Amino acid sequence: MNQSSPAPSGEERLIARYFAPLAKHAGAFGLADDAAAITPPAGCDLVLKADGIVAGVHFFPDDPPDTVAKKALRTNLSDLAAKGAKPLGFLLTLALPEGVGDAWLAPFARGLGADAEAFGCPLLGGDTDRTGGPITISIAALGAVPQGKMLRRTGAQAGDRVVVTGTIGDAALGLQLRRDGSAAARWGLARAARQSLEARYLVPEPRLAIAEILRAHASAAMDISDGLAGDLGKLCRASAVTADIEVACIPLSEGARTALSAEPALIETIITGGDDYEVVASVPAGKVEALRHQASAAGVVVTEVGAIAAGKGGARFLGADGTQFVFARPSFSHF
Amino acid sequence: MNQSSPAPSGEERLIARYFAPLAKHAGAFGLADDAAAITPPAGCDLVLKADGIVAGVHFFPDDPPDTVAKKALRTNLSDLAAKGAKPLGFLLTLALPEGVGDAWLAPFARGLGADAEAFGCPLLGGDTDRTGGPITISIAALGAVPQGKMLRRTGAQAGDRVVVTGTIGDAALGLQLRRDGSAAARWGLARAARQSLEARYLVPEPRLAIAEILRAHASAAMDISDGLAGDLGKLCRASAVTADIEVACIPLSEGARTALSAEPALIETIITGGDDYEVVASVPAGKVEALRHQASAAGVVVTEVGAIAAGKGGARFLGADGTQFVFARPSFSHF
Repeated sequence: MNQSSPAPSGEERLIARYFAPLAKHAGAFGLADDAAAITPPAGCDLVLKADGIVAGVHFFPDDPPDTVAKKALRTNLSDLAAKGAKPLGFLLTLALPEGVGDAWLAPFARGLGADAEAFGCPLLGGDTDRTGGPITISIAALGAVPQGKMLRRTGAQAGDRVVVTGTIGDAALGLQLRRDGSAAARWGLARAARQSLEARYLVPEPRLAIAEILRAHASAAMDISDGLAGDLGKLCRASAVTADIEVACIPLSEGARTALSAEPALIETIITGGDDYEVVASVPAGKVEALRHQASAAGVVVTEVGAIAAGKGGARFLGADGTQFVFARPSFSHF
Repeated sequence: MNQSSPAPSGEERLIARYFAPLAKHAGAFGLADDAAAITPPAGCDLVLKADGIVAGVHFFPDDPPDTVAKKALRTNLSDLAAKGAKPLGFLLTLALPEGVGDAWLAPFARGLGADAEAFGCPLLGGDTDRTGGPITISIAALGAVPQGKMLRRTGAQAGDRVVVTGTIGDAALGLQLRRDGSAAARWGLARAARQSLEARYLVPEPRLAIAEILRAHASAAMDISDGLAGDLGKLCRASAVTADIEVACIPLSEGARTALSAEPALIETIITGGDDYEVVASVPAGKVEALRHQASAAGVVVTEVGAIAAGKGGARFLGADGTQFVFARPSFSHF
């Protein structure tokens, strides 16, 4: 080999082998250039979001690499969905410790590719580095909405209803099951229920199927990544309103219901735990039925859980007798 | 405090204090929403790039935080410049170990803000996380070019000249000076020359001032991040051409020249070391003078270092007697 005409480096080979096949957008140039070039759809705003996940913080180092990849992408897609946006593509920055090689990269790239395909969100570019620390995955996702139409946290109005997608609290319970080997027995969970909760922690379900429907009906929306209480609190602060939530209306999976009846204090985990990646939205009362109906037709259950009232009261969670829940740790925060 | 109406979390406070002031683009919503929304400039393609830097890999853990911030942003801006793009903004993902607090974040945010302002590239959004590893900074930058006009690695033609901006090898020598306390004396460097080389490693200079000029004249271009030899080799492979470079023509700073005359073997470090963040471009022979002239007027020195020949010969580096240099490690690669 003529060394003054260097062959592709290890990094180039790694990219060519694992990531170039995912770069199906013509503007990604097969990851063989320094940057991607895409023509934005006419009449649209770009919706931009970046989110990172770190081994030992957001996922377990021994989680299956394909689910790690899916989680990394889906946490971003969940934001695009809640903002009413259609995905355009994503950039990936990957920092890998020594010793992470083909055995991890092959399933990681396979999982990422499957989701890029499933959600119509191709890999556009990125960067692969070494790190002296844990696997660190950062994704920046681009989406599009008609100009000026991104769903905001602001916009909730007194009289609006509060709705959520799917079921709440599953991922937080799934995380507890991962951490506490005796929890499943204590909560009386059958194997399938336990697996279902754990799967919700491993791989969230971004609600892209209803992004456009949300945009048509909601007055404000966001995805729930740091717990319903904390995130709805953020939406209320941004909109300068109060949300009164009936705890009994919060949709729960069968597993969560079983666990909760065995251990009623878990209601706090369910309401304040993170990683739901469901959407919470405020919707004018007259539009709730259309939203529920259209979302249902798209395969997503939408449940009304409360209403918006005037005044900067934040998110209030009310029991059947009208008393207000008080949480020890109302929202997840890394800091 | 009413705990069921949670106050801003630690992460929200950190973002509000350090990063919201940098989010001057209206579409960043003061970082108070889940995503940014920007209207892309009409008739333009978006140029997209993501690049990460990791403490202990791309910078020293005790580097000044403001220079770390600048390096993180500028490595991306360097790509935008080489692709002929004008910056639109960037997304930041920051993973911080325990113990990294105000004393690091305040100068980091100050450096980042100064560069965002200087290069017209506002912070649009991002994510802040904990990590069990080193400080990890990932930036995704967006730029714009007229539709279809992004400068590519492909496009170099036999007969084109090869040019580079600025001086080559300074950052690689600066890194050696950081690592080897006796190198400065061995190379006979005065204090100012040593500091100048080290500064080039700490804070690269993205050549945005000539992005448009490059687009007007170059047939292919890329920035030099992994060394001139390796990166020009990539450009040659993409264009299926040969580049013949006269080593004596490669522009060197005074410090590099001094070091090289003391230790001639450093020519390999200069040509194959990384972190130059200069631009290498192929330019049709008839356009070189216009490019040099216009770049000079914009404050950037452009130097002709060789020519493109037919055939997939890669990048060849030739001595004064026409013999070809052979490098032990032709290109930097993390893998």
